[in-house]
Amino acid sequence: MKTGEQYLESLDDGRKVWFEGELVERIADHPILGQSARLIAEGYDKVYDPTGDHSPFSDVPTDAAGLREHGEFMRDMGVLAHFTYTSIMTLLTVADRIMDSCPEEVERINAFVERARAEDLRIAQCITDAKGHRRVRPGLQEDPDSYLHVVERRDDGVVVRGAKLHITAASLGHELMVIPTKGMKPGEEDYAIACVIPVNAPGVKFVDISYAPRNAELGDFPVSGPESYPESFVILDDVFVPTERIFLDGEVRLASVFAHSLGLWERLGGLSEMADGADLLVGLAQLIAQANGTEGVAHVRDKIDDMIIHATLVRASLEAAITNCHVGDNGAAFPDELYINAGKYHAASNYNMLVQHLHDIAGGSIVTAPSLADLRNPEIGLAVRKYMQANPEFDGEVRLRLFHLIRDLTAHAYGGWRLVSNIQGGGGLYAQKIVTRKWYPIDAAVAKAKELVGVPF
Amino acid sequence: MKTGEQYLESLDDGRKVWFEGELVERIADHPILGQSARLIAEGYDKVYDPTGDHSPFSDVPTDAAGLREHGEFMRDMGVLAHFTYTSIMTLLTVADRIMDSCPEEVERINAFVERARAEDLRIAQCITDAKGHRRVRPGLQEDPDSYLHVVERRDDGVVVRGAKLHITAASLGHELMVIPTKGMKPGEEDYAIACVIPVNAPGVKFVDISYAPRNAELGDFPVSGPESYPESFVILDDVFVPTERIFLDGEVRLASVFAHSLGLWERLGGLSEMADGADLLVGLAQLIAQANGTEGVAHVRDKIDDMIIHATLVRASLEAAITNCHVGDNGAAFPDELYINAGKYHAASNYNMLVQHLHDIAGGSIVTAPSLADLRNPEIGLAVRKYMQANPEFDGEVRLRLFHLIRDLTAHAYGGWRLVSNIQGGGGLYAQKIVTRKWYPIDAAVAKAKELVGVPF
Amino acid sequence: MKTGEQYLESLDDGRKVWFEGELVERIADHPILGQSARLIAEGYDKVYDPTGDHSPFSDVPTDAAGLREHGEFMRDMGVLAHFTYTSIMTLLTVADRIMDSCPEEVERINAFVERARAEDLRIAQCITDAKGHRRVRPGLQEDPDSYLHVVERRDDGVVVRGAKLHITAASLGHELMVIPTKGMKPGEEDYAIACVIPVNAPGVKFVDISYAPRNAELGDFPVSGPESYPESFVILDDVFVPTERIFLDGEVRLASVFAHSLGLWERLGGLSEMADGADLLVGLAQLIAQANGTEGVAHVRDKIDDMIIHATLVRASLEAAITNCHVGDNGAAFPDELYINAGKYHAASNYNMLVQHLHDIAGGSIVTAPSLADLRNPEIGLAVRKYMQANPEFDGEVRLRLFHLIRDLTAHAYGGWRLVSNIQGGGGLYAQKIVTRKWYPIDAAVAKAKELVGVPF
Amino acid sequence: MKTGEQYLESLDDGRKVWFEGELVERIADHPILGQSARLIAEGYDKVYDPTGDHSPFSDVPTDAAGLREHGEFMRDMGVLAHFTYTSIMTLLTVADRIMDSCPEEVERINAFVERARAEDLRIAQCITDAKGHRRVRPGLQEDPDSYLHVVERRDDGVVVRGAKLHITAASLGHELMVIPTKGMKPGEEDYAIACVIPVNAPGVKFVDISYAPRNAELGDFPVSGPESYPESFVILDDVFVPTERIFLDGEVRLASVFAHSLGLWERLGGLSEMADGADLLVGLAQLIAQANGTEGVAHVRDKIDDMIIHATLVRASLEAAITNCHVGDNGAAFPDELYINAGKYHAASNYNMLVQHLHDIAGGSIVTAPSLADLRNPEIGLAVRKYMQANPEFDGEVRLRLFHLIRDLTAHAYGGWRLVSNIQGGGGLYAQKIVTRKWYPIDAAVAKAKELVGVPF
Repeated sequence: MKTGEQYLESLDDGRKVWFEGELVERIADHPILGQSARLIAEGYDKVYDPTGDHSPFSDVPTDAAGLREHGEFMRDMGVLAHFTYTSIMTLLTVADRIMDSCPEEVERINAFVERARAEDLRIAQCITDAKGHRRVRPGLQEDPDSYLHVVERRDDGVVVRGAKLHITAASLGHELMVIPTKGMKPGEEDYAIACVIPVNAPGVKFVDISYAPRNAELGDFPVSGPESYPESFVILDDVFVPTERIFLDGEVRLASVFAHSLGLWERLGGLSEMADGADLLVGLAQLIAQANGTEGVAHVRDKIDDMIIHATLVRASLEAAITNCHVGDNGAAFPDELYINAGKYHAASNYNMLVQHLHDIAGGSIVTAPSLADLRNPEIGLAVRKYMQANPEFDGEVRLRLFHLIRDLTAHAYGGWRLVSNIQGGGGLYAQKIVTRKWYPIDAAVAKAKELVGVPF
Repeated sequence: MKTGEQYLESLDDGRKVWFEGELVERIADHPILGQSARLIAEGYDKVYDPTGDHSPFSDVPTDAAGLREHGEFMRDMGVLAHFTYTSIMTLLTVADRIMDSCPEEVERINAFVERARAEDLRIAQCITDAKGHRRVRPGLQEDPDSYLHVVERRDDGVVVRGAKLHITAASLGHELMVIPTKGMKPGEEDYAIACVIPVNAPGVKFVDISYAPRNAELGDFPVSGPESYPESFVILDDVFVPTERIFLDGEVRLASVFAHSLGLWERLGGLSEMADGADLLVGLAQLIAQANGTEGVAHVRDKIDDMIIHATLVRASLEAAITNCHVGDNGAAFPDELYINAGKYHAASNYNMLVQHLHDIAGGSIVTAPSLADLRNPEIGLAVRKYMQANPEFDGEVRLRLFHLIRDLTAHAYGGWRLVSNIQGGGGLYAQKIVTRKWYPIDAAVAKAKELVGVPF
Repeated sequence: MKTGEQYLESLDDGRKVWFEGELVERIADHPILGQSARLIAEGYDKVYDPTGDHSPFSDVPTDAAGLREHGEFMRDMGVLAHFTYTSIMTLLTVADRIMDSCPEEVERINAFVERARAEDLRIAQCITDAKGHRRVRPGLQEDPDSYLHVVERRDDGVVVRGAKLHITAASLGHELMVIPTKGMKPGEEDYAIACVIPVNAPGVKFVDISYAPRNAELGDFPVSGPESYPESFVILDDVFVPTERIFLDGEVRLASVFAHSLGLWERLGGLSEMADGADLLVGLAQLIAQANGTEGVAHVRDKIDDMIIHATLVRASLEAAITNCHVGDNGAAFPDELYINAGKYHAASNYNMLVQHLHDIAGGSIVTAPSLADLRNPEIGLAVRKYMQANPEFDGEVRLRLFHLIRDLTAHAYGGWRLVSNIQGGGGLYAQKIVTRKWYPIDAAVAKAKELVGVPF
Repeated sequence: MKTGEQYLESLDDGRKVWFEGELVERIADHPILGQSARLIAEGYDKVYDPTGDHSPFSDVPTDAAGLREHGEFMRDMGVLAHFTYTSIMTLLTVADRIMDSCPEEVERINAFVERARAEDLRIAQCITDAKGHRRVRPGLQEDPDSYLHVVERRDDGVVVRGAKLHITAASLGHELMVIPTKGMKPGEEDYAIACVIPVNAPGVKFVDISYAPRNAELGDFPVSGPESYPESFVILDDVFVPTERIFLDGEVRLASVFAHSLGLWERLGGLSEMADGADLLVGLAQLIAQANGTEGVAHVRDKIDDMIIHATLVRASLEAAITNCHVGDNGAAFPDELYINAGKYHAASNYNMLVQHLHDIAGGSIVTAPSLADLRNPEIGLAVRKYMQANPEFDGEVRLRLFHLIRDLTAHAYGGWRLVSNIQGGGGLYAQKIVTRKWYPIDAAVAKAKELVGVPF
């Protein structure tokens, strides 16, 4: 297992990272990426156990209770817990599903997982390609690199070219788990490639951006000020991948197994976060209503009730998914697809109701409240505090900070990132509908309807 | 245990039932109530076991598995299963909750439950009062009978007056479980009355109505044609209740315990039915889309997906409620209030989406398709069959019957009854919001928000 | 102009009408169709003017003020006003649009319209075909009669075969305006047929159904009891149509002109009705809330507000459509397509919110209130009246009747008919989306967005 | 009339403005406020006419055509057009409404309006107070300054104390129009104060914040980069107001006239902006769908249709409000309150649907797309452009810029400001419901329902 210090040192491995047009000299020294790296380092330190053989980040639950417990652990570890766990669980789920057809690849997967656990690596899941024209197959794009593909085959491996988009914190990990973004068809063998690539492999380039606030007063951003992670646009510019790091090469009919396996774990993580996130917004709505003195007003009460019911439904679908989990042949438990996907869709497509209700309950000060810097100014600070107070039981500063907190979560750069990520995480609302449909027992529902028709058919 | 025959005989006990302005001579001979009675008789026969000591209708689950299993049984038994089960479970839940303060009443409850199980009685839960002006307390109404109350006290019991509304099939049972419709306050002691009353007690009058179709061709109503139950408007006109049948008398602070206990079981039943009902509507949407030849059309597919997601969320909340059930001191398991109520609210308030989508997918023939009688007519029958056919894989008659089935379930008298009952069952949407709010762990949500504010308060 | 008496006599013309499997001997004597016929007769009498040369039903507005005024007139005349007006306006709109390409047909149209106005005829618009498999073109259906088509050509006319569905009151009019249900393609010339056919032409058969209540106590159905109209399933079994009655024959590229023209007027009528209907439901919600004593309760107030806002938006789209009307070359004004269609979509897709709110506000008595027959019964009538009273300012009978009114409008056969018709009238929700899209100035919207991109493209 | 230059000079009048804790030396030199000031200066120059006697900003429409035309003008002038126009129209509306009771004040209003037009002043409407505990009347607050009030009366005027919140660009105008935030009651005479105050009056302090982006690459924010306006938190610290600047003092029953008059004009401006804004988001959805290659995908098409229908409904309510405008005794036309408010409510409460659909259609690159700075970098720029291209008809740079534009409008600081402002502008969703209710003809709706009940009452 690694310490935080060891992790920070491991970043100086020659990786190439750009941030807003500039090549980053040393990640730990970068004003924005450095902060993200230190947060990850803290995660290492929190669970460091000199006698342990692997990090709890890569524990593998084997039943409903284990899934529940590991969920709790990940919640305490924060957003980035999913970073590595999801990659490892995805690989184990894949291994379970392709065991019969690709025994050799399964061995390579297992070897990699073992090493990753032993060396306590952070692994980014790289799935989404640039994709080119959305209605054109990967193999027929005007630019053949729109989907990552093999451009050269050598005795000891392959050379790949393409880009992977929306990869949270990829530039801060050690390995890239690169998998096809969807199923491939005969003729698209070069696109049916899955492998792991070290972040410092020649040809790998990261273009990072971040929702981290740039305002002078970081205190006005209580969540994203101290904690933010970059999104990487990963360019794979003729990168060589040795054979032992290849998990799929040319087997088009298996390409979608990787995406489906990742989807399952991403959506579990996503659903957990959305359940917790919904509770948080309920709590904020209740707090700001109290601070305003409106928590007893009927329409405010009614809106909080709507939020509560939403939060409970999201939680119920998570509960149902875990309770009805399935165990693969390799012993790893995975949540029920139907409940996970229906819950994720519901949570994502109603998230904006939570935000709207919170904005309606809180009031315009979300976007007009003075800065904490104004509060500290001797000439106006007292007046700001005085006039920001509403319900006298809540100090003006507390209410001011509540507004900044709400803005940060829902109405500024980080809030916008959440708004978009909730919808797009795991593949967009439509993708979630399709997966839900796939798992719903429609035949049973149809049979039930048929019974009532009155004549056999 | 009773046979169906014994049940039908037990109805000739002098009870007074009116139907659309006429006193009913003999229930079994009444064209509409007689049919309902025979359906209940069939329920008796289905589970009759000459060696059994009680009906499975009055089994008491003691854990999550038991709740699940009993739910399955009730689903097979149909709507009226809840009739007796809910009353008994309500009384047991009440007994568990008032054990300390009212040991004598608990004994009476237990004695009644024992007798009811031994004699295999059907018991209607009578809760909703006439209620008078909704913003006026029971004790302050212009008409003091707006809420059922004690009008006379005797040594051996009390005399009550009032009415109970919306009591499904009350006129077809043996006993009325009469409980306060809500909490009472000091000064309203006469309104804090709960008891059981035989249906043929002097002063009890039933005014029944029914959604049963009156059309000549009952085949056009495949669900409500063969199966319907009346709603009773129960008038209690100075009815004497002996002491041993009284479970609450004057203890105002306990009045709401009865309503809450009933609410829990009513909502469990309601949620189960809505989960099954949602699946049925999904099945119908899929079938009629196939029969129309539109099951592959994008917007139809999308609407069915919406229905699937709704059905799955409702099912998830039922799953979560059962998985997180609680067991009372008397050993009876009861589902989690939070999930039950949030699920019920969601199911009821989105039921109209299911209906709208189904109507949109099916088409106008829901309300314009010819009768089955037309199909049998030699001059026009062939043309009706011919022009009712759409997708050639579905016979015109099957499609015609599908439209009638959809109309019966969603766009005729029974459909209207469902539309209203889904919302009002267990007390209206607002009541469900209040109960959900009551059980949601808002303090934990607030604590979570507080942590992020940045200063203690 | 005709009197009501003359109209009733005109029905005895040998037309063939079946109702629930039976051939109707004489319409005026039929228990259900006879009532509908008498209602139409009353409409004749209301506007009868012995000196007039045509009925106001067939007036042709020429500007926004005229459209508004004629809308008022039609509202007073009730549902069936649209019966004839829509057909005539459709034909005039068509005439305006095909004037250049089909001068001869335009002459025939004008001649027919003139005669229809002179003889004060009622004309049913027959558009929807049986349609067969929805994903198969008219000309490729397994059953070639799935869409009405020409099966024989003679010197003096054509013979047509097929069926027209969902034709309100077709069996009670004088003429059928038969038009293609959608655009046709080369090769489908036989399907590009529009004409007028007398209801008693040999081969025309009507199969009628009706939402009219069959319950003994018609007073329980205050709207549909006294007023109902049948829906005809019109079979055209090798019907001969003489040349002068043919308005389109084989010009496939003009087939859709008829449907679009009808759609415009149907949607205007539909939108007007929905605007009035929304106001009515608001009024009912307010009244029943008052009768319950809940009109001041916050969540009730809030729901009525939602209904008010909906009703106002629907009215606003009607206002915008009329204000922005267009005038054709023949002088007839027609409303703006964009606003009509967007308004119609919005009204139809949110109608179920109105119903749900009304059900939630009113309470379960919508489907459980005793019959008016019970109210008249001397033994129980007083108790029914007493316990149906809530707010003492509203007599129990009034409240009882309010519940029946709400049930009739929203939760019984007629309510179901409305629920479906609102969605399907003018072609289903999806069709309204497509038409709205067609008329929305998307290029202007795109241009606006382009301006902000920062680089030209 | 003023030139832009003259306007910029007029800002150096000693006003006291703080920005994020710092006193602003000279507004024109401030990195953020200076930009806003120059934008306003450009507005002056655009309409400058050396021979004109007043700016078109303060034209007064007198009929529907005038309202429509002035709306067009204001749209071209941008957000800040409302700045002065709304204040002047509010004062004229007030003057019309209090003419009888306060002739002297009306004279002062007219004199001020004349001077403001002559000197081409910019006037900020200052309405919202700090408000303290929301459930406590202004006169009963723990802190009496929670609502602005008179703290001293002198022969030649009054001294006021309090704060006004959410005042867009107040620090960049010349005058503050200060009015009560709501109706006052007897005993609250000191709170019934309306007046105009110069921005540099002693005791006036502005605490400004801004959604202006602080990122290094302003090109990533194509809307808010070049154009942003501050929100002022206006502290009125014992400010003296001479008598001729007082428009209301102590007449509690007239206090709400000001708020209602302002509300009307604010909502007109708000509704216009939302109608235009909705069209813009439709245009963006269409463009990004084309750039992605998905504009023909059914669910994308369907979502754009939803957006189109929403945009059309918002436009319809604006059309209906203008068409049904009313003209006051002083000749000024004002839009219909009912349509304005219902439209505003609908637009605001469904705005998040527009945003969600746009996010769903566009994809995750909204928040993960590289910076324009990366595009210019020689090492990665080509790859960024290459992989940002989807549909080959759209250059990668165009698509990249589209993502930044969408982020700026909907998912970053400015987007958050819009999200909140749409809901809160004109007083929060609930306030808009109340005003709509006030203007809806509920009596007519109730009368319509009563007619159908069957008995008079």
